Amino acid sequence: MEFRLIDRIRERTAQTRDDVRLGIGDDAALLAVPAGQELAVAIDTLVEGVHFPVGTAPADVGWKALAVNLSDLAAMGATPAWALLALTLPRPDAAFIDGLADGFAQLARLHRLALVGGDTTRGPLTLSVAVHGFVPPGQALTRAGARAGDAVLVTGTLGDAAAGLRCLQPHMDVQTSLRDALVERLNRPVPRLAAGLALRGRASACIDVSDGLLADLGHLCIASGVGAEIDAALLPRSSALLGLFDEAAARDFALAGGDDYELCFSVPAARVAEVQADLARLGCGATRIGRIVAGDGVRVRDADGSRLEPGRQGWDHFSA
Amino acid sequence: MEFRLIDRIRERTAQTRDDVRLGIGDDAALLAVPAGQELAVAIDTLVEGVHFPVGTAPADVGWKALAVNLSDLAAMGATPAWALLALTLPRPDAAFIDGLADGFAQLARLHRLALVGGDTTRGPLTLSVAVHGFVPPGQALTRAGARAGDAVLVTGTLGDAAAGLRCLQPHMDVQTSLRDALVERLNRPVPRLAAGLALRGRASACIDVSDGLLADLGHLCIASGVGAEIDAALLPRSSALLGLFDEAAARDFALAGGDDYELCFSVPAARVAEVQADLARLGCGATRIGRIVAGDGVRVRDADGSRLEPGRQGWDHFSA
Repeated sequence: MEFRLIDRIRERTAQTRDDVRLGIGDDAALLAVPAGQELAVAIDTLVEGVHFPVGTAPADVGWKALAVNLSDLAAMGATPAWALLALTLPRPDAAFIDGLADGFAQLARLHRLALVGGDTTRGPLTLSVAVHGFVPPGQALTRAGARAGDAVLVTGTLGDAAAGLRCLQPHMDVQTSLRDALVERLNRPVPRLAAGLALRGRASACIDVSDGLLADLGHLCIASGVGAEIDAALLPRSSALLGLFDEAAARDFALAGGDDYELCFSVPAARVAEVQADLARLGCGATRIGRIVAGDGVRVRDADGSRLEPGRQGWDHFSA
Repeated sequence: MEFRLIDRIRERTAQTRDDVRLGIGDDAALLAVPAGQELAVAIDTLVEGVHFPVGTAPADVGWKALAVNLSDLAAMGATPAWALLALTLPRPDAAFIDGLADGFAQLARLHRLALVGGDTTRGPLTLSVAVHGFVPPGQALTRAGARAGDAVLVTGTLGDAAAGLRCLQPHMDVQTSLRDALVERLNRPVPRLAAGLALRGRASACIDVSDGLLADLGHLCIASGVGAEIDAALLPRSSALLGLFDEAAARDFALAGGDDYELCFSVPAARVAEVQADLARLGCGATRIGRIVAGDGVRVRDADGSRLEPGRQGWDHFSA
């Protein structure tokens, strides 16, 4: 069935690029990396019932499978180019595949990304996407490089996706428009690719928030050999989140909820205003939430300066 | 759990390459494609119970997940460089992960391939591997290019893996050494990378035999706009296969069994002897099994010239 499925997906995701010398349909794709560019590659898997709820619309699944991978390229400051899709599904369901391909293609087109290969197999619904992007040598953003004194910023708002997941639980009966806004953030994350490009040469370190702010900022701190202090009162939260949940719940979602796909990054203090102005022009904005300090670990302070001990330190798929 | 698992795998697959600017541990790997090379990329998934039997040793699973992907690079005449591994497993089982990483690493080391990224998630046991290799522009082997009059050849022997799978069925009680040889071919396929390189500039078309000779040669014929005639009497079969199964069963395994990971390719008739001599020197050998003809479809002739109608036309994971 590999050939029929992948042809169906190919038709719906058609995107012509000169650097694709041979696309879907042979044993491998043949691709030309532009001169003077390094390749940034990442792979991420979504499993039904683990990374998205059973019953999620196929177009949302297709969008999200690509989005979480593009978010990794955004965190590196890379420009997306190509993707491979490994799709495992229980039965050949044309409507499901078409929906999935449509959602994937919607996001792919926005970034001129070409699907260049794939594999379809039978089994429990699982999608692995590998993405490839370009970045000039030495210009990639990494997790290492944050220094004591740097400011810590985050794009957009935090906690919406985790709140959206909570809203899908059967006993939740909440105002529809706010609920829909949060569920949209869960199902249709927007990779911050333009922000990642704008941060090249400015952010000292960067990571995307997939496991939750505390967990991911923790990874950045380990890679940089530093610590961080976060002011809970500064965490950017959406009006939808604050409209449906109390302050304590909203704070926990923002600190540890996961699935945000915002960028968390450090910037020398002198450049914060300039970076914020540019990211505001790009539409996502960036909020200063704390600072890099000597030492290790991530500490959270409440508005009165006391130290918070959140209930969860990020989101681990195995402990969830 | 992503970080602990992938670290464990990284330790066991450590392979240093100058073209890996940033390996496992950030949001994406950063890689440098050598000047004057195109990138060949492929992705393939193995699902427990579909692509390998439940109970397969973890080291065999790790080997096979990489091998089936390297076989795609072999079929393109590409030199392997890097891989990404997306691993989904039901629970964090250190012994299983270590075994899997060891099997993966054994094969990776043989080809100086570096594991540059990955993702580990919870769910039914599934491995998606994406491989990246290099090939000079215009020199890749593809499925298109076979011409009427070309000879059709295949490396190694056919049907062993499918026979090995049959041997694992509980009611099979067969001689141990022959059985082991066939099961080894099922669990530890050897990608024909050296053969693929040797075929650059000589084979007019090439494909790897993963779904079965008839199915895969059929794909080659469609891509080339030709047909093919195969002589059943010429099919290369191992002594283990012929020692355990009768002629009809051995022929069906060789024609339609799948999981062989040999290369099937076409060569202008005048170059057959030279190609065969070179592949013999590489240890795998190549057998002439038929010819490319005008028209379409793959026909099989018996020793007396009559046309065979095999029971199965290749192996489809959804119809299996």
